[in-house]
Amino acid sequence: MSELTARAQELDAADELAGTRKQFVLDDVVYLDGNSLGALPAAVPGRVDDVVRRQWGALRIRSWDESGWWTAPERIGDRIAPLVGAAAGQIVVGDSTSVNVFKALVGAVRLVSGTGRDEILVDATTFPTDGYIAESAARMTGCALRAVTPAEVPDALSGRTAAVLLNHVDYRTGRLHDLPSLTAAVHAAGAVAVWDLCHSAGALPVGLDEHGVDLAVGCTYKYLNGGPGSPAYLYVRRDLQDRFDSPLPGWNSHAEPFGMRPGYEPAAGALRGRVGTPDILSMLALEAALEVWDGVSIEAVRTKSLALTDFFLECVSAYVPEGRVESLTPLAHRERGSQVALRCDDAGDVMKRLIERGVVGDFRHPDVLRFGFTPLYVGFGDVERAARVLAETLGDLAG
Amino acid sequence: MSELTARAQELDAADELAGTRKQFVLDDVVYLDGNSLGALPAAVPGRVDDVVRRQWGALRIRSWDESGWWTAPERIGDRIAPLVGAAAGQIVVGDSTSVNVFKALVGAVRLVSGTGRDEILVDATTFPTDGYIAESAARMTGCALRAVTPAEVPDALSGRTAAVLLNHVDYRTGRLHDLPSLTAAVHAAGAVAVWDLCHSAGALPVGLDEHGVDLAVGCTYKYLNGGPGSPAYLYVRRDLQDRFDSPLPGWNSHAEPFGMRPGYEPAAGALRGRVGTPDILSMLALEAALEVWDGVSIEAVRTKSLALTDFFLECVSAYVPEGRVESLTPLAHRERGSQVALRCDDAGDVMKRLIERGVVGDFRHPDVLRFGFTPLYVGFGDVERAARVLAETLGDLAG
Repeated sequence: MSELTARAQELDAADELAGTRKQFVLDDVVYLDGNSLGALPAAVPGRVDDVVRRQWGALRIRSWDESGWWTAPERIGDRIAPLVGAAAGQIVVGDSTSVNVFKALVGAVRLVSGTGRDEILVDATTFPTDGYIAESAARMTGCALRAVTPAEVPDALSGRTAAVLLNHVDYRTGRLHDLPSLTAAVHAAGAVAVWDLCHSAGALPVGLDEHGVDLAVGCTYKYLNGGPGSPAYLYVRRDLQDRFDSPLPGWNSHAEPFGMRPGYEPAAGALRGRVGTPDILSMLALEAALEVWDGVSIEAVRTKSLALTDFFLECVSAYVPEGRVESLTPLAHRERGSQVALRCDDAGDVMKRLIERGVVGDFRHPDVLRFGFTPLYVGFGDVERAARVLAETLGDLAG
Repeated sequence: MSELTARAQELDAADELAGTRKQFVLDDVVYLDGNSLGALPAAVPGRVDDVVRRQWGALRIRSWDESGWWTAPERIGDRIAPLVGAAAGQIVVGDSTSVNVFKALVGAVRLVSGTGRDEILVDATTFPTDGYIAESAARMTGCALRAVTPAEVPDALSGRTAAVLLNHVDYRTGRLHDLPSLTAAVHAAGAVAVWDLCHSAGALPVGLDEHGVDLAVGCTYKYLNGGPGSPAYLYVRRDLQDRFDSPLPGWNSHAEPFGMRPGYEPAAGALRGRVGTPDILSMLALEAALEVWDGVSIEAVRTKSLALTDFFLECVSAYVPEGRVESLTPLAHRERGSQVALRCDDAGDVMKRLIERGVVGDFRHPDVLRFGFTPLYVGFGDVERAARVLAETLGDLAG
């Protein structure tokens, strides 16, 4: 047994979160793609079957009340809230992340309407959809859009800045941005801070309330394991809710949705962020998936996440010939999310071979191997094996 | 046996569509709320279980390719297309109806940009969300919004009109509007016609291509039986697709979505209407639900639908004391959808009692009993029983 294999065993034996793995459906694959699609929580299939057969099939229309369908968006929002450091009543679940970015960014600009602010700053390194949607939001609110890196944000802020859209963790490099200080800088400039939490929620503490974030969005199919394309969420800080003016004022956000009134009157609270009829099958699958968080602290998740990525970098360094891969993920813990991105020649081909050998990460154009570490079901033995298989694969390709 | 009971038996015996009922999970309830939430197709539970356990649970991320997840929005759109008279390649499934109304209406106004047209006409009798979203679309495109009844549309059209949003069937009264002639009138005025098909798709022929409709949206959880909150769809006529300019240009509508490029370049074809990651559980439940349409012609559905609503009106007329209820649904077939709306004192209380007696319709504020007739699973015996129970209920209340 190698020294690293032994270390992995010790680390797994001491892992406080080792018990949560059995709440997922896993096989002998090392699944390091939970930052793209989380694994299936064991509670989900039975719940979905009940939703389909009993709630829909037998109760049918009655389930909107009797099975709690109508209130699911805010109920499940409240279940996500503690994971991102939010008190209840500030999050609603529904629609895709892209649609929620649109709501949040247009809503953000409208919060400062009348102040002459006419520029939106967007993270230039962001996942593309945020940039595309920001461009549309800017166009439709009469703002200019300016793309800057997160590091450039403090200098780019001015009296023109209406809103700033930032990613908490970069989807490609895994870099964690400094949410508290960037939010403070945005506020000091009188602008509104909108955060995309897709790659941080469920992987590390976010502290939305503590740091005074204005609006936030995130998906639920990565570290929250909600399933393919499960609905996203929107956070609107409590004291801004009365002034939140959604560009998508569907009937579900009306003060009296079944009044069927011709005039729109927005509901109070977070549910002002709702739009149309909520997608119940996916939403209740997500609700079941969130049960794995019962009794789990996000701080413990963060501690393990950093230990996993540290150990992966150590194993890669030990096993892979120097210079063959280069980590794009920062070494400093305060700058690291829950993934490791390795720049690698022939990354597409390498990832294909890794997957054939039972180590599943993903490839991001043009040359990045991306490995996500989900503390709820990835162990240190998985990490050592992934690095070893990577080294073997690269060795085979070289030979 | 009463004369109407005997008639119901004869009609059921002669019903060409009687065989499709066994493809649904039904009990002894008379379910006349399929215009709100369609009944569960028998193929759905097994399919959803496979999607959850095998596609998500075992294949995980590989399913985006191997299980056809990525292409589901356009594939399922092509399955809906023949039901609304559209050739393939013009419909994508995803998002809620409200979100699709926003895409369609903003896209419609942009199709005539540069022509000085600055007014949107919206059906004043429409389901409220269409009006609310139309107001937002008008505000965000610099247009005025004017609410008119469908009958007033021809006179209201002018050189100012950019787009007109109409409901094919009124959600409250069940009135069917004249899509061919209204579309022709909108076109004659140089404007863009947007139709909401929520209450017609799956119940009667729509003829989108034949009548030259520009854009259309619809939900899939009523007569298409997709399940609670199942995704809606967007139709963009083929020759308009190159100029369709979505206000929600998410990464799924990019020409090269996995290129992760900073600049947005819209995809060709209908998938330009996509936005974010598709909601797979709900979408594949819908795909399974659509299998009940194999070999069913929408013309046969329409024929049976009219026979059902005719027979219901006849039974109500025979059983219910004159003056106690009043039909808001037109008698003329060319003006009738697939529901009957009865104005009735104490309608909320009456519907509650009907449901207790196993006849499920719904109540619409302030005084409407709404009964939807889904030809795929409602029979003439159900119709007679519903009218009889209604008469008994009203008799009990009177006594």
